[in-house]
Amino acid sequence: MAEPELQTEEPEVEGDEEQAITAALVEAVAETIRTGDAERLRTLAGDLHEADLGELVAALPADLRPGLVELLGEDFHFAALTEVDESVRLELLEDLPTETIVEGLRDLDSDDAVYILEDMEDEDRAEILERLPLPDRVALTRGLDFPEESAGRLMQTDFVAVPPFWTVGRTIDHLREMEDAPETFYEIFVIDPYFKLIGTVPLDRILRSTRNTRIEKILNEDVRSFEATQDREEVARSFQRYNLVSAPVTDPDDRLVGVLTVDDIVDVIQQETEEDLRALGGVMGDEELSDTVVETARGRFPWLVVNLGTAFLAASVIGLFTKSLEHMVALAVLMPIVASMGGNAGTQAMTVTVRALATRELGRRNSGRIVVREVLVGAANGVLLAVLLGAGAGLWFKNLDLGAVIASALIVNMVVAGLFGTIIPLTFHKLKLDPAVASGVFLTTFTDVSGFFGFLGLATWWFGL
Amino acid sequence: MAEPELQTEEPEVEGDEEQAITAALVEAVAETIRTGDAERLRTLAGDLHEADLGELVAALPADLRPGLVELLGEDFHFAALTEVDESVRLELLEDLPTETIVEGLRDLDSDDAVYILEDMEDEDRAEILERLPLPDRVALTRGLDFPEESAGRLMQTDFVAVPPFWTVGRTIDHLREMEDAPETFYEIFVIDPYFKLIGTVPLDRILRSTRNTRIEKILNEDVRSFEATQDREEVARSFQRYNLVSAPVTDPDDRLVGVLTVDDIVDVIQQETEEDLRALGGVMGDEELSDTVVETARGRFPWLVVNLGTAFLAASVIGLFTKSLEHMVALAVLMPIVASMGGNAGTQAMTVTVRALATRELGRRNSGRIVVREVLVGAANGVLLAVLLGAGAGLWFKNLDLGAVIASALIVNMVVAGLFGTIIPLTFHKLKLDPAVASGVFLTTFTDVSGFFGFLGLATWWFGL
Repeated sequence: MAEPELQTEEPEVEGDEEQAITAALVEAVAETIRTGDAERLRTLAGDLHEADLGELVAALPADLRPGLVELLGEDFHFAALTEVDESVRLELLEDLPTETIVEGLRDLDSDDAVYILEDMEDEDRAEILERLPLPDRVALTRGLDFPEESAGRLMQTDFVAVPPFWTVGRTIDHLREMEDAPETFYEIFVIDPYFKLIGTVPLDRILRSTRNTRIEKILNEDVRSFEATQDREEVARSFQRYNLVSAPVTDPDDRLVGVLTVDDIVDVIQQETEEDLRALGGVMGDEELSDTVVETARGRFPWLVVNLGTAFLAASVIGLFTKSLEHMVALAVLMPIVASMGGNAGTQAMTVTVRALATRELGRRNSGRIVVREVLVGAANGVLLAVLLGAGAGLWFKNLDLGAVIASALIVNMVVAGLFGTIIPLTFHKLKLDPAVASGVFLTTFTDVSGFFGFLGLATWWFGL
Repeated sequence: MAEPELQTEEPEVEGDEEQAITAALVEAVAETIRTGDAERLRTLAGDLHEADLGELVAALPADLRPGLVELLGEDFHFAALTEVDESVRLELLEDLPTETIVEGLRDLDSDDAVYILEDMEDEDRAEILERLPLPDRVALTRGLDFPEESAGRLMQTDFVAVPPFWTVGRTIDHLREMEDAPETFYEIFVIDPYFKLIGTVPLDRILRSTRNTRIEKILNEDVRSFEATQDREEVARSFQRYNLVSAPVTDPDDRLVGVLTVDDIVDVIQQETEEDLRALGGVMGDEELSDTVVETARGRFPWLVVNLGTAFLAASVIGLFTKSLEHMVALAVLMPIVASMGGNAGTQAMTVTVRALATRELGRRNSGRIVVREVLVGAANGVLLAVLLGAGAGLWFKNLDLGAVIASALIVNMVVAGLFGTIIPLTFHKLKLDPAVASGVFLTTFTDVSGFFGFLGLATWWFGL
């Protein structure tokens, strides 16, 4: 979908600003897939990291993607599919023979396999699971049984667990012989005969202890573990707050069932902040860069309709003052300024509040303080800006009374902005609704209505219109 | 600064929604500091994780914070200071005796010590460095010499490096004897006699290899390493993209100088997204929840002044049409709707573009496609919303011509919104300016001007006003 004309007009950019997969590489790969030259394709794309391979998949025209997978064969690492947009992944999986998918999934860690399987159609997924070897099938089915967005979906089910009475030497010997160890791991778990978690030992501590040291002597008992059904956002917050690199996952009976590693969590942390950012910008969380015009337009439409409704509400407030506007057209010219400044100041307060709630920096302990602070900030900046606005408007229309009226209306609206910019997200949070999603619409409704009503109402009264 | 009245009125929330440090604990700790009961303080706060201890520090009144540090003594882990807002940290460090700070820093990993020292006054920092033991002083001074926001500032200078001809057995013996190993580590580095990096070996691979395996047989040669002067944002993107847990840092001569671990990088990833989110909301990156009213108001004021300027610009466009407004006051009632819808649709397009640029999902290869897509999305939603708006306005004012005029103006403004919502951030990016910071102001200027001019201009022409 590249636009060659546009691109050749663009100036050169430094290497670090460049995307890893260049347009030239995409073109070369596309050409090679068309000719079916497997050897050349392996030279071009066989050594790519799974993240880069994913970017290549997404950049190729959809009809060539299955060819890439088939021609690369064993050199196509299916983990690349965890790096592409959901729509790209589902379309490609739809086009691939079941056998290819089964082969690809067998080489993956269980968390990656679950990630790829979870959004597929039930029927297709069942067909694939059926053809996987029993142990893989059991592990994946178990992972898929946990709720969406839970720790259980993110966890890796291969891990190393030993009893506390083993020595370091025996543990190391066990590791050397183990067949189904995970690809990489950072700590081992210590369990009792019922598989209940007793503690963890980081690998560096094993390496630094003598062979005859008993595991129970070096284990961490104070472990932050998570339940498999726990929400991944909560888990991510803990990882970030307590600087975790990996953590055990347990079932309701405290038995060890898997391990979470920070590389999966990093993406969750990023996604949650990203979702707030998008929500504040009026964009749905599931919109993707690869979406078509129709998909994108459809996703954004509902929010715009809601905004149309609130805009009509604001207009109806203006409609109350048509007489005043007819007598004094300067009011029409100036009124958007008061509303717009309130909207901007309110958005500042709201942005800070929404994020502090999301990171739990803001809670019951300090919510009172933030409301008071934002109201005072609104008042302070309101007074300063009112001087500028009042003078500007007064001089423009050579009417100092008009300047005084608009200045007063601005101060009121800036206080309203600070108050509702904090109260609205705090209220949503208390109602257990996501404050990022709807706060903006409510806020601008309040600041628009208060801006128009305050200014036009005050002017009508002052000038006796 | 808690507001007890507000809090008692709040309903109970679940434990997971609760902040880790409750108002009750803060009160108990404050009381204990006042009475100077060190033993009780250790019971209350001695076992807290450094992140929770940091939250406690921030929640205490400023004058009690030095007392907490002094009374806890060795049980106050200075890493807690890396978890609090900069203003809280600097104020506390100002109030603590140099000797206490020196003792606290000695126990820290070098990256945490650099983090605490970097924002202090040059004079205070020099005094502290002077009193530290020579090896610590050299390591920290070196870290502080790297540019702000560079990999060198984030890295930890203690690491394990061995020559390639060592065996796994000798490496393990070395680790068991090592005195100054870092607190935790996940891989060891392989270097040549000149300290140049040859490769890395993850700890699990050492544990899984037999004692007589030579390190060169099991090392990763394909290592993602970073230069100490590299920007931390770029480093964070690589960590996230390639799922890194730790990575070596080298000097310009390729010599190993330190190691970066993902726990430090997680915060960078979060901060960079957070900065974009704040910038889009018109809030400066360095604003903190602990800031006072004056600090907050001062930080937000410049952005509001810029917005006042653009609001005047939009008002001056309306000023061109005072005659039309006098003849047809319905125009004044309806005109904010067209401007507001354009602003909202443009913000949607801008939000998506700014983030895709930040994550490098969007680059030269696909920037043409996104502009075209957003213009078409604007046109498509514009047509649909124009039907609603046109019908609504036409019925409200019983004037179908007015409905047709506002419908046409909306379509134009929605296309303008899609075009400038993408073009503005892409242009900032190409000029190597942060697209998140100023895009919003420019965008709403365009959508306001185009909204008012389009609607009032079209109406003036149509109705011959």
